Amino acid sequence: MNDTRDRIVEATAALFQQRGYTGSGLKQISTDSAAPFGSLYHFFPGGKEELAAATLRWSGHGYQLLVTTVFDAAPDIVTGVGDAFEGAAEALRLSDYADACPIATVALEVASTNEVLRQVTAEIFEAWIAALARRFAAAGIAVDRSRELAIAFVATLEGGFLLCRAAKDTAAMDALGRTMVDTVRAALDTAAFDGR
Amino acid sequence: MNDTRDRIVEATAALFQQRGYTGSGLKQISTDSAAPFGSLYHFFPGGKEELAAATLRWSGHGYQLLVTTVFDAAPDIVTGVGDAFEGAAEALRLSDYADACPIATVALEVASTNEVLRQVTAEIFEAWIAALARRFAAAGIAVDRSRELAIAFVATLEGGFLLCRAAKDTAAMDALGRTMVDTVRAALDTAAFDGR
Repeated sequence: MNDTRDRIVEATAALFQQRGYTGSGLKQISTDSAAPFGSLYHFFPGGKEELAAATLRWSGHGYQLLVTTVFDAAPDIVTGVGDAFEGAAEALRLSDYADACPIATVALEVASTNEVLRQVTAEIFEAWIAALARRFAAAGIAVDRSRELAIAFVATLEGGFLLCRAAKDTAAMDALGRTMVDTVRAALDTAAFDGR
Repeated sequence: MNDTRDRIVEATAALFQQRGYTGSGLKQISTDSAAPFGSLYHFFPGGKEELAAATLRWSGHGYQLLVTTVFDAAPDIVTGVGDAFEGAAEALRLSDYADACPIATVALEVASTNEVLRQVTAEIFEAWIAALARRFAAAGIAVDRSRELAIAFVATLEGGFLLCRAAKDTAAMDALGRTMVDTVRAALDTAAFDGR
C-alpha cells in the first residue's frame, strides 16, 4: 500500500462514517487527506465510486478484525458477545456519537442507486456473518442455527448503532447486548442438551 | 391537512426512502409532488429542514400504525412478532428492495450534522419502543424486560432492512423473525413461570 493512497482511503472512511457517500465530496476528501485531486484520480481512475468501493472494503475488513479480536480475547463465546456490545457502546461514547458504521450508512444510501456499491456492502455483511457463524459453530452450535445467530448479531449491532446515535445514549446498546448474550447462551444450552 | 402539503410530504418520504436526506433535492421534491417551489416555502418556511422534520414524523407515525395493526390482527403477541417480520420481508420484495426505512436512512446521515433532525429521529424511535413495550407488558412480561424486548424488536427490524436491501434477498429477515419469535416466547415463558 502507498502512503498517499492509505491517507485518501482513511480520510474517506472517516467522512463516510459521519456524512455518508452522497455527503462526502471529493474536494473534502482531497483536503482531509492532504492529497491533491490528481492523486485521487491517479489511485482511483474510476473516481468516487472506485474510491468508495476500496474504502468500504478496507473499513469492512477492519471491523471484522476488531470483532474477531474481541472474541479471541474472551474466555468463552458468550463473554465475547457481551464484550463486543460493550465495545460498541464505548466506541459510540468515545466519538461522542459521531462515528457510525460506514458500511451501514452507505448501504442505506446506495442500495437503490448504485449497483456496484450495493454489491460491495452485501459482500462485506456476508463476510461478517460467515466469520461469526464459524465462531458459533466452533462453540458447538448447529450450523444452521449458527448462521441465524450471526445474522442476529450483525443486525442487532447495526440497529443498536442506529438507535444510540439518534438518541446520543448507549442504553439501547446495553439492552441489546444483554438480549444477544441470553440468545447465544440459550443456543449453547440447546446444543449441549442435543449433544448428550 | 392540505392536499398540496400532503403531496409534498408524501413525495419527500418516498425520496428519503430511496436516497436519504442529502440525496433528496428540493427541485426533485417539487417535480415529484407537482408543487411549485413557492408552495414548498409556503408550507415549510424553514425550508428543507422543516420539510424533513414533518416528513419524518409523518412516516414514523405511519410505520407505528402499521406495526400496531399487525399486532392487533394477530391472535397473540408471538404470532404478531412473526407477522411483523414477514410483513417487512414482503414489503422489501414488493418494492424490489427499493424502499428502506426513511427514519433509519436519515438518522444515520444527520446524526452528526443536524441536531434538529437527529432529535426528531430519536423521538420517533422512542415512540416506537414505548408503544411496543406497552404491548409486551400487556402480554404479561415484566416492564423492564418489555422495554428491552421492544428495543431488540426495533433494532433487529432496522438491521434486517439494512442486510436485506444490501443483499437484495429476504433470507436475513426470515432468520431474524425466527430468532425474535423465540426471544419473545422465552420471555413469556419466564413471565408465566414467575407468575405461578
